[in-house]
Order: sequence, then C-alpha cells, then structure tokens
Amino acid sequence: MTDQSNKPIADEALDRAGHARRSLLRFGGAATLGAVLGGGVLLGHASPALAEAASQGELAPNEPLDILIVNYDGGTLLDFAGPSEIFHRLPNTRVRYASLNGGNVTLEFGVVYGNTERLADIESTDLILVPGGSDLSVPMGPEYQAQIRRLAESARHVTSVCNGSLVLAATGVLKGKRSACHWAFVNKLAEYGAIPVPDRFVEDDHGRFMSGGGVTAGIDFALRVAEKLRGRQAAEFTQLVIEYDPAPPFHSGHPRDARPEVLAMVDKRLPGASKGLARIPGVR
Amino acid sequence: MTDQSNKPIADEALDRAGHARRSLLRFGGAATLGAVLGGGVLLGHASPALAEAASQGELAPNEPLDILIVNYDGGTLLDFAGPSEIFHRLPNTRVRYASLNGGNVTLEFGVVYGNTERLADIESTDLILVPGGSDLSVPMGPEYQAQIRRLAESARHVTSVCNGSLVLAATGVLKGKRSACHWAFVNKLAEYGAIPVPDRFVEDDHGRFMSGGGVTAGIDFALRVAEKLRGRQAAEFTQLVIEYDPAPPFHSGHPRDARPEVLAMVDKRLPGASKGLARIPGVR
Repeated sequence: MTDQSNKPIADEALDRAGHARRSLLRFGGAATLGAVLGGGVLLGHASPALAEAASQGELAPNEPLDILIVNYDGGTLLDFAGPSEIFHRLPNTRVRYASLNGGNVTLEFGVVYGNTERLADIESTDLILVPGGSDLSVPMGPEYQAQIRRLAESARHVTSVCNGSLVLAATGVLKGKRSACHWAFVNKLAEYGAIPVPDRFVEDDHGRFMSGGGVTAGIDFALRVAEKLRGRQAAEFTQLVIEYDPAPPFHSGHPRDARPEVLAMVDKRLPGASKGLARIPGVR
Repeated sequence: MTDQSNKPIADEALDRAGHARRSLLRFGGAATLGAVLGGGVLLGHASPALAEAASQGELAPNEPLDILIVNYDGGTLLDFAGPSEIFHRLPNTRVRYASLNGGNVTLEFGVVYGNTERLADIESTDLILVPGGSDLSVPMGPEYQAQIRRLAESARHVTSVCNGSLVLAATGVLKGKRSACHWAFVNKLAEYGAIPVPDRFVEDDHGRFMSGGGVTAGIDFALRVAEKLRGRQAAEFTQLVIEYDPAPPFHSGHPRDARPEVLAMVDKRLPGASKGLARIPGVR
C-alpha cells in the first residue's frame, strides 16, 4: 500500500435510522496507515492534525498506547470482552488486565478470568477502563478505590463501560463530569457528583473522559475510542474483522423500545431500574 | 405478576431496515413467564404449542437446559462472551465450559479463561456451542475432534459462532447442512461437505443446527437461540438487561459496507478473505 498522506476519504456519520451520511474530510493518512498495517511500524511524520491532537494531550496514532482493564470479582464479562477484542487488534497498543490481588478473578455467573496483574504493580497507564458488574462490593472497597483513583488521576483517558462508571465516580474523579452508565443505574451517578447522561457513548473534556452504556455498549464505546486514539481506518478495520454488523432479532435493547411487560420484569428484579436508580450490592 | 396464560402479546419481526412489524400471536404464557421470573420455578402445564415443540425434539421453555461451550487455546473471547452473557441469564439454564484437559485455556492475545471442565467428563449436553478462533490447530486435533463429534451427535442442538463452524464441520457432523461462518472463511465449509451460507444467523433441520457469523454475530445468534429454547419473552428480557441497542459508529461491519481500502487491509493480512477462503492455522 502506498503513501496516502492527506488523501481525502469518505466520512460516514450514522444518522439515527442507521443510514450513512457521507462527507469528505482530510485524514492524517500516513501515520495511521503505518500504524494499522504495521502494528508498531512508524511511517513518516505526524500530520498537522495529529500534532494538534497531541498538543491537546491526546496520543497521536503512531505513539504506543497502553490500556489497562480493571478486573474484579463480580464483574461482567461482556462489559470488557467487547473492548478487549477491539483494543487488542489496534496497532501499537498493549492491553493489560489487573485486579487488586492479581491472578484469577471470579466474574458474574462464576466465570473465571485469569492471569491478571496486581493493580499496585502498575505504575501508570494511558487509558484506564473500569467495566461494570452485578455486584460492585469488591471494587467499591477502599483498597480498590485507592488504586483506581491513583491510576485514573495520571491517565490520559479515564473510561468505563456500564455501571463501571459508578466505581469511577465513587473515587471522586468524575466530579462535575458527564458520564454514561447502564440505563438501570445511570441516575446513581449524581449521588457521586457526576453528571448522568443517558446515552450509549459519552465524552467530556475532549475525550479525557469517555464512557459507554450498559454491557454491549462497550463495543460501540471501544470503536469510538479506537477512532480517537488509533485513527478512523484502524477502527473501521477492526469493526470489519469482528463482523460488527448487528442485526438484533427484537426491538428490546433499551427501555424506550422494550414491551411494557418486559420492562416490568426488569423493574421487578431491579427495583428502581426504570427510573435509572436500581440498587446493586456495593452501591449505597 | 399474575397468570397470563395464552394472553396475546405483540410479536415484532424486524424487517431489513431494522424497523418492526407487529402482529399478534398466541403465546404459551404461563410456563414461559414462570421460567423467566423464577429461574427454575415451574408454573402450570405446558401449552399445546409447547407440547408440539417438545414433540419435534425441542425443549419446552420450562424444561432444564444444559449448554456446553467448548473452549480451546487460540479461541476468540468475544465469540463466546456474547452467548455466555445471554445464556447465563436464561431461566432454568446451566452453562458449562469445557476444554480437552480442563483448567485454564489461553485464548487469542494471551487472554486466559479459567476453570473449564474436561470434555471427557461431560456425558452429554442439550446444546453444544463451538466458538471460533484465530488459530484452530488445537480443536482440529484428533482428540478434540473426537470429543466434539461425540457430544454433537447426542446433543439436541449443534451450534457454532464464527469459524467454530469449521471445527464442527471437520468432525463430519455438518455434512449436507447449511451453516454460517465468519465472512472471511465461510466458503471453507464446502471443503468439509457443509453448505456455506453467508448470513449472520443460519439454521437447518428445524434448529438442530444453528450457527452465527463472525465474532459479534454471536450476540444475535444467542438471542435467537434464547427465543427458540426459552421463549420470546426471556430473549427480550435478556436483550434489555444487556442493553443490546447497537449503534455502530461506522458502516464497516461487513465486506458489502466496508470501504475498499479497509477491505484491502484485510485481504493483505488474510489472503483469500474477500472470497471467503482465508487461510488460518489448523485449517487445511
């Protein structure tokens, strides 16, 4: 593939019906293509746009990127399995997993996720991701909170999926920041001084804070993070490789679409859910 | 919630644009609602529709369901993390994980999935799921193949996600059967006597064989399996809980949508991909 610096490419912004609008924009092609194809190969110089991005505290697509996924007992596998699958495929990107004590963690339903590092052994990371869980008692504990706060304060990007945002918010780092959360818990964010936003993807402070909604929102979240940090083409490449061309068999993925009797089932199991105020172990 | 036996409920079939058509059907409500809410609680008698389903070799929604997910070194986490997240939430359903030697398996990218049972210790299962991977050398080996063939032959439902269908096909159980696969590998199915179908979800023999396309297709696959085996309402409830309301930021999830330069990147890394004939370790 030849040098494509600053070649115009199509930009597709999805409208609400899921169709594409196309517009042209300039794209810092060389560095991005090098990163995508080479997985660490650096080609040419960063474009002016990339230099500008770097000056705002963002990484250029050819700088190494270190991502840390925080694991804990009671976490939800799919909250981070989507991001994991995407982040591992990005060029020049290292993905690590850590928990308070290292080793195996026992997720929701007894699923065991292994080989995590110890949080205290991680000096710093470019991007910290806190996934959610069905029981937040463990990551809401003081030692977990202290480690997450330490790593989040020094990270360039502080991120979460699902009710992982409650864990981040409890550390204080989301004070006054807009954040997403699973729809059943989103308004709990206000109890920690964060600003609840009932969207599937939310960012604040020009991407220093990025968050996804519930569980499967982690996939959409991670593709947006991928675009921001590794470039549009790397994100599209990853979407193609994981065949993310969703075709849900029902319209039941959000309270605005679910049938009343289905929503009633959730409210029965998670009182307060339809108000975004469901209770969950570990959350006061 | 009160008895809702045979109460008509709305059925939504999604058209290709993602909008819903609504039609009314009779629904075997008591058993299904009991299963959904009770997670094992059996209410009342199966409806005539359920009895008919059972007579076709299908499980009624209130019968216990045992699901076995086959793990192996080199597998892809998200191929089964979506189904896992959905299946664990279904009523009266047990989900187990097994590998040839039991214990930890090391998935793609060094991700460690723990606590699997030994395949030889599993006498039988109602539904076997074989996920895909980036290296199929391990599950294509003779011992894995023998265990998978044994369990598939006696299972009511033989299923796969991504190129896990190649692993199943290599055992011979998909001879003459229609099957899905990741788009990059789908035509390889013909080399094992299966019938490649380039869809996101495929079933044959009235659901004895069900398969999903690449990686993230496992989520759509699992929701369809959930509907078939545990009833529509349980499937919709699960979709709502995992907030599966996808909003991909790009149109790049399938070769028909991806930009030519993105597709070229895939063909470069996986020669033959655009013809559905990509090579992968372990596949002849």
